[in-house]
Amino acid sequence: MILAIDVGGTKLAAGLVTPDGHVLETRVAATPQDADAERLWKALEELIAPMPEAEGVGVGCGGPMIWPDGRVSPLNIPGWRDFPLRERLAASFPGRTVRVHNDAVCLAAAEHWLGAGRGHANMLGMVVSTGVGGGLVLGGRLVNGGTGNAGHIGHVVVEPGGPLCGCGGRGCLEAVARGPALVAWAQEQGWSPGHGPLDGGPYEEGRAVTGRGLASDALRGDPVARAAMARAGRALGLAIASATHLCDLDVVTVGGGLSQAGAPLFGPLEEALRAHARMDFARRLRVVPAALGQSAGLVGAAALILAGDRYWDAI
Amino acid sequence: MILAIDVGGTKLAAGLVTPDGHVLETRVAATPQDADAERLWKALEELIAPMPEAEGVGVGCGGPMIWPDGRVSPLNIPGWRDFPLRERLAASFPGRTVRVHNDAVCLAAAEHWLGAGRGHANMLGMVVSTGVGGGLVLGGRLVNGGTGNAGHIGHVVVEPGGPLCGCGGRGCLEAVARGPALVAWAQEQGWSPGHGPLDGGPYEEGRAVTGRGLASDALRGDPVARAAMARAGRALGLAIASATHLCDLDVVTVGGGLSQAGAPLFGPLEEALRAHARMDFARRLRVVPAALGQSAGLVGAAALILAGDRYWDAI
Repeated sequence: MILAIDVGGTKLAAGLVTPDGHVLETRVAATPQDADAERLWKALEELIAPMPEAEGVGVGCGGPMIWPDGRVSPLNIPGWRDFPLRERLAASFPGRTVRVHNDAVCLAAAEHWLGAGRGHANMLGMVVSTGVGGGLVLGGRLVNGGTGNAGHIGHVVVEPGGPLCGCGGRGCLEAVARGPALVAWAQEQGWSPGHGPLDGGPYEEGRAVTGRGLASDALRGDPVARAAMARAGRALGLAIASATHLCDLDVVTVGGGLSQAGAPLFGPLEEALRAHARMDFARRLRVVPAALGQSAGLVGAAALILAGDRYWDAI
Repeated sequence: MILAIDVGGTKLAAGLVTPDGHVLETRVAATPQDADAERLWKALEELIAPMPEAEGVGVGCGGPMIWPDGRVSPLNIPGWRDFPLRERLAASFPGRTVRVHNDAVCLAAAEHWLGAGRGHANMLGMVVSTGVGGGLVLGGRLVNGGTGNAGHIGHVVVEPGGPLCGCGGRGCLEAVARGPALVAWAQEQGWSPGHGPLDGGPYEEGRAVTGRGLASDALRGDPVARAAMARAGRALGLAIASATHLCDLDVVTVGGGLSQAGAPLFGPLEEALRAHARMDFARRLRVVPAALGQSAGLVGAAALILAGDRYWDAI
């Protein structure tokens, strides 16, 4: 049994995962806000304390990080800067393998291992949410690139001179298609949140104005929400066309809150993709919604260990 | 000794290559124009007839092709459509390995093996000439993608809604930065060819209006030629930024006629690259001119055999 951990800015999750990728036991805790490094570590320690029997530990964590060292500085967890997460976990689980990778990369590994990308040798796994991230599988193996950062599809340029991006560039896919950017765009066009998400996720007062809420409203026919999804879809289609020309992909999986929008997102995405992916070899590409649900992060973290021949290539 | 063959629309080249990548003997012939499949084959057969002792045959050929079968349909050789080049060569060299790959991919393999990309595990090798092509090396190995077409950087979109591309899309890097497109753009701005190329290449009457000529004029200070090179450089920088965010590259090599322009091309390229490649991991990327000269195509074709562990991954 492998201990899988998913470290995010909102919540910490941990689970025991069987060799075939079933998540047996899940524990979740809120990520302490405004906490220092040691308080954050204590919260994680308490979460995983009931799972000491794990034979190995796989971790997905928000980036950036020094990889494969697992020294993490997650954008949304200011208390951890160059925090030696892998080293701490290795001390807690002596003699056992501990592997840490980018959370978006883990989601891609999960979709390739057991989800919508299964059986395809060349895949880009995307997540469209508060940010736009991804992971790249080529020749059946996870691609790390020089520093473990391959897969950053969110910073492919789709609109030169376009909106400023968090990275400092302009016109990145993420600057156009991330949830908060779309919400801001929709609000400028007069949208205010309607009915709440279709999937029963959190939608309380004060959390309603999210990409997920916008996606739900689009699916219900709200015209501004639909226009926002079309805007995201076009940007995604264009970035995916560029990615498949460069990497000769078989399949792209799209997950994250925005992918809940279904046709209002995927229709314009396909249209832009087909307009731009014109080389013969690129026409065969299929874009599909991610198949694994809430547990994908844990499944992918476990895959770093359980299917390390494909998803772990560090020296 | 390996027989290396480079099949292009203008010329056919063949050479014997030593195990360490030295091209010992080179023969070149003009590619028969308006010839049918068998006349083209005959020309190639005559070219390689004096080199029957080869222990293996590596071929770089213009795309598209069915890979790894080596059935070729080079855009610039209309007489060959689905021509079984690999099979014919295998019949001519019984018992010996014959491998055929895209010519741009061979150039990238050459630069990685013995040129400007040597020692870097993650590289994009580009050629900017009549077209814009490339090959991708990740984790120290050539990436083929699903159909052997990975590396098509020329069809990364740099100008959505921009000029029509030969592929049918719009705003591809190739549509903006290929030699003939730049020449047309420069001529619209009033440029006419000046002094000829610096490198002593062909520049007779009637051949002067080429990307190479434009590059030479830019280097001599012609303002319109410089503006054309800046236009290409910006497009290249933007595409390279997207590629490095997606693939986490260490180095990009740029070869082909246009790369002769030097600073007038590479200056604006660097500027656009640095404006868009803002993620920490992307800042370390270096863009360098290709190091191998005219023989690069033959060296890369030979690498398919001589360094097949890195550059040949077909099942």
